[in-house]
Amino acid sequence: MDANPHLRWHPLRGEWITYASHRQDRTFLPPPEYSPLAPSNDPNFPTELPLGDYEVAVFDNLFPSLSLSSHDAPKLRVPTRSGTGHCEVVVFTQDANTSLGRLPVSHIDLLIEVWGERYTELGKIPEIKYVMPFENRGVEVGVTLHHPHGQIYAYPVVPPIPAKELEQQKAYLEQHGRGLLEDMITDELQDARRMIFAGEHVVAFVPICARYSYEIWIAPKRAAPSLAALTAEERRELALALKTVLLKYDGLWNKPFPYLMVIHQAPTDGNDHPEAHVHIEIYPPYRTQNKLKYLAGTEIGAGFFASDSLPEEKARELKAILINLES
Amino acid sequence: MDANPHLRWHPLRGEWITYASHRQDRTFLPPPEYSPLAPSNDPNFPTELPLGDYEVAVFDNLFPSLSLSSHDAPKLRVPTRSGTGHCEVVVFTQDANTSLGRLPVSHIDLLIEVWGERYTELGKIPEIKYVMPFENRGVEVGVTLHHPHGQIYAYPVVPPIPAKELEQQKAYLEQHGRGLLEDMITDELQDARRMIFAGEHVVAFVPICARYSYEIWIAPKRAAPSLAALTAEERRELALALKTVLLKYDGLWNKPFPYLMVIHQAPTDGNDHPEAHVHIEIYPPYRTQNKLKYLAGTEIGAGFFASDSLPEEKARELKAILINLES
Repeated sequence: MDANPHLRWHPLRGEWITYASHRQDRTFLPPPEYSPLAPSNDPNFPTELPLGDYEVAVFDNLFPSLSLSSHDAPKLRVPTRSGTGHCEVVVFTQDANTSLGRLPVSHIDLLIEVWGERYTELGKIPEIKYVMPFENRGVEVGVTLHHPHGQIYAYPVVPPIPAKELEQQKAYLEQHGRGLLEDMITDELQDARRMIFAGEHVVAFVPICARYSYEIWIAPKRAAPSLAALTAEERRELALALKTVLLKYDGLWNKPFPYLMVIHQAPTDGNDHPEAHVHIEIYPPYRTQNKLKYLAGTEIGAGFFASDSLPEEKARELKAILINLES
Repeated sequence: MDANPHLRWHPLRGEWITYASHRQDRTFLPPPEYSPLAPSNDPNFPTELPLGDYEVAVFDNLFPSLSLSSHDAPKLRVPTRSGTGHCEVVVFTQDANTSLGRLPVSHIDLLIEVWGERYTELGKIPEIKYVMPFENRGVEVGVTLHHPHGQIYAYPVVPPIPAKELEQQKAYLEQHGRGLLEDMITDELQDARRMIFAGEHVVAFVPICARYSYEIWIAPKRAAPSLAALTAEERRELALALKTVLLKYDGLWNKPFPYLMVIHQAPTDGNDHPEAHVHIEIYPPYRTQNKLKYLAGTEIGAGFFASDSLPEEKARELKAILINLES
């Protein structure tokens, strides 16, 4: 696979777009016997993983949007650069028929440790300025493979959304001498109406400013900059919080609940980032059991989100869901 | 309908979110005999339009995300304000079974004139800082009513995306003494590979930095700040360009082609905006005939777009589509 993506500058939006035109043919919902994520050593059906025991596996994305070997970006009438970066697939488990939320807490703990290690390793590469693990779950968000897995993108720039969040956090820290997310967490704990999981070290809540109906943020209470900076105790509680949230989602309508999940951490650009505070943001596409929230004119064209529901109402629904952590 | 939306400040993203919790029950794909956009005076099935001849009709959205009568925003631990603004529905034609692209050029010309008039009228309201007409077309983008129609949102702030575009345009104008979009248009005309319509006053092209595979921008060559500022000649050519683009879309796979279409204009905030240059941006959700472009982890979570195709390839496909302007 000759992956040679390049970036073009979008002058009106002030951001980079990556073009990887070999990606159209990537695997789309293959039947189970052809899953490229199933371990195999059958030479007739090679997959991306050899046979063998593993709990969590990481390998290079065969259809990367960014590649460390990219070169010779075309010269155009807008600035261009090679699509330097790295894309990885993280297989959460060998079991094709489970889900992240149904893994044992110890297994999710291990996954968070792996995410943290990849953050550290990828962050050491001089060209990599930002590392973002994420999971897209469900056909509603376009998932092409159902084996439980996520991805890691390692970017050559700090992308626009984390950049904006860090800018806001930096201004707040300079003005108040405290972390923005730390203060938001203190407020959420005091208010309590939107709190889904309140542990000793970690919290999960529907944010007061949720854009998606069932949006949840999960974060350590202290401003740890990345998953790699968590203590073993914090990491284990983060695993428990994540499992709690995902089981509540699935319990809401007794069916697998689709979502996008992203992890925002400190940039790996060599600068200090005292403003950074690692957190997981989960955006589920449903606004009610049968209605999807489509991002339409006002969201996509103006960046102005319109929500049909109050965060307090949706948090109440989620609070009422009983879960079995042994499931 | 007691519409009383309120805004909450999102401290991490630095933007406003609007909450209008009465909107969950809005009409969703009704059968044709119950279309709320069909003119009717049957008291058993009241619709939003009385019987009578019209070509283009504008009325208040019954499920507004923003309302001039909103009041008493709740006091919360983030800044809040009332959801002041206005939302309108624009019915493009009485014919429920046609589409914007199939209307005669003279009819589209009239629609653009109506959009311009609404920009002027809504812009006069002191609370309104930005007016954005848009159309969501197709079930793929969540459209709930198939009668050809669009919407206009009148915002109490300049929303994040137009604000960012204007900031980029302002910096460019100050640095170069020329308009950013004017220079991009000059470049696109010289390059020609991505040009879809090149008229005397108006152009349509797949932008060199397209984020969506079949993205197209339509704009007057000169930096007119709004649709209201166009001459009759420019407006008519804009109608012709828009019709050309929409017929090419429908001709691509001989089926109705879904898209989001938004119109970016100068803010109505009372300040001069020499950097503003009115333009239409169209974002179609398909990346190939059978594959949707889902906005997933990298786009939604990082704001970093990954495209599977080159703008030049997609422009070539669209250039090859022959259209009949009399259709």
